[in-house]
Amino acid sequence: MSTLIELCEFNASYADAIDSDQLERWPAFFTNDCHYRITNVENESEGLMAGLVYADSRAMLVDRIAALREANIYERQRYRHIIGLPMIGTAQDDSVEAKTPFMVTRSVSAGPSELFATGVYQDRFVRIENRWALARRVVVCDSSTIDTLLALPL
Amino acid sequence: MSTLIELCEFNASYADAIDSDQLERWPAFFTNDCHYRITNVENESEGLMAGLVYADSRAMLVDRIAALREANIYERQRYRHIIGLPMIGTAQDDSVEAKTPFMVTRSVSAGPSELFATGVYQDRFVRIENRWALARRVVVCDSSTIDTLLALPL
Amino acid sequence: MSTLIELCEFNASYADAIDSDQLERWPAFFTNDCHYRITNVENESEGLMAGLVYADSRAMLVDRIAALREANIYERQRYRHIIGLPMIGTAQDDSVEAKTPFMVTRSVSAGPSELFATGVYQDRFVRIENRWALARRVVVCDSSTIDTLLALPL
Repeated sequence: MSTLIELCEFNASYADAIDSDQLERWPAFFTNDCHYRITNVENESEGLMAGLVYADSRAMLVDRIAALREANIYERQRYRHIIGLPMIGTAQDDSVEAKTPFMVTRSVSAGPSELFATGVYQDRFVRIENRWALARRVVVCDSSTIDTLLALPL
Repeated sequence: MSTLIELCEFNASYADAIDSDQLERWPAFFTNDCHYRITNVENESEGLMAGLVYADSRAMLVDRIAALREANIYERQRYRHIIGLPMIGTAQDDSVEAKTPFMVTRSVSAGPSELFATGVYQDRFVRIENRWALARRVVVCDSSTIDTLLALPL
Repeated sequence: MSTLIELCEFNASYADAIDSDQLERWPAFFTNDCHYRITNVENESEGLMAGLVYADSRAMLVDRIAALREANIYERQRYRHIIGLPMIGTAQDDSVEAKTPFMVTRSVSAGPSELFATGVYQDRFVRIENRWALARRVVVCDSSTIDTLLALPL
């Protein structure tokens, strides 16, 4: 039960880093050699690894944030994540797989909040130095129509 | 407190069965002689039992899924549930009433995710063979405009 | 961990009071000399205290509900809150700060549920007579376009 609560707390903090414009905190949720990918359910069911966003190290996540800051994209949009309860799958002492649904809204400039993406996180967490980190987060979006404007992490 | 966590885990698994196209798992969340009904707040406040969907046994839920599969409706749409925390009411050792809010989005074919339904589950859970099962789930939707295309379970 | 669960239960009950038309229960979630405010992220980041709604006592909250009832506004609309997990900040024995994301949908008359507001609660809870109460809730909406029709509490 405590693992469940810990993963909930992890996801709450993860969402807050993105939604409150503290993007530089985001890569620290991952391991050094993490796998992070945004894809959609059609691609995933066909086994296509190519996604909308792909990174296989934390350094690439750091680069991505730097690029977003340089492009100044974040000024124009704001996300809000609501993350559901993790369904915990295979679990060992220092590693756990989980599947967690999410909804994300986006507001652009001063406009209204609109539903932006829904889907599921397919995660593998590992325990390092007494805290959880993401060794893998595959963000599987329900829709395949969200590629063009995608900018912030999900 | 553990009952609360258990009901959260139950709802996470319930949502996942529907949202990940494992509809055949859905009836197993209910008791044999369950009551399942989808209605809306107007009908419910007037005491109208007639809902958009009505079943008074698990066998009827099984039939419903078989019909959905035959009609091949599921290929064209996908749901995503985000389920809130249960408010636990009357509780006994092997039975508990709960009221739980939900939001469901739907994406049709390759289209965008759109808000489909919001409302509250009015539930009675019973404990059978060391796990919880739904003896009653009344799905009270906030809006009365979602009847026509309703197909998947909520 | 138990504080986290208690705050989740608090928020579930808070949302239910508003969403199930038991608005008169709403002021009881606050302390006598509470600070309650609805604002948006632009105003808040500029330090503007003026919000869409402002109250600095529970009596003002009671007045607000009475006014809503008199105007009969509630008959025409219905909210649904989905509230995320609190991120707990500074905590003492009888006081805790928390930051909690929310999404609220609204259905007007018999119309469809539509996304109405997203944002974050910036809260300070105090423990009084063995239960939590809000000494401060600042509702920071992500969008600045929701002022005109705002009526029910968030």
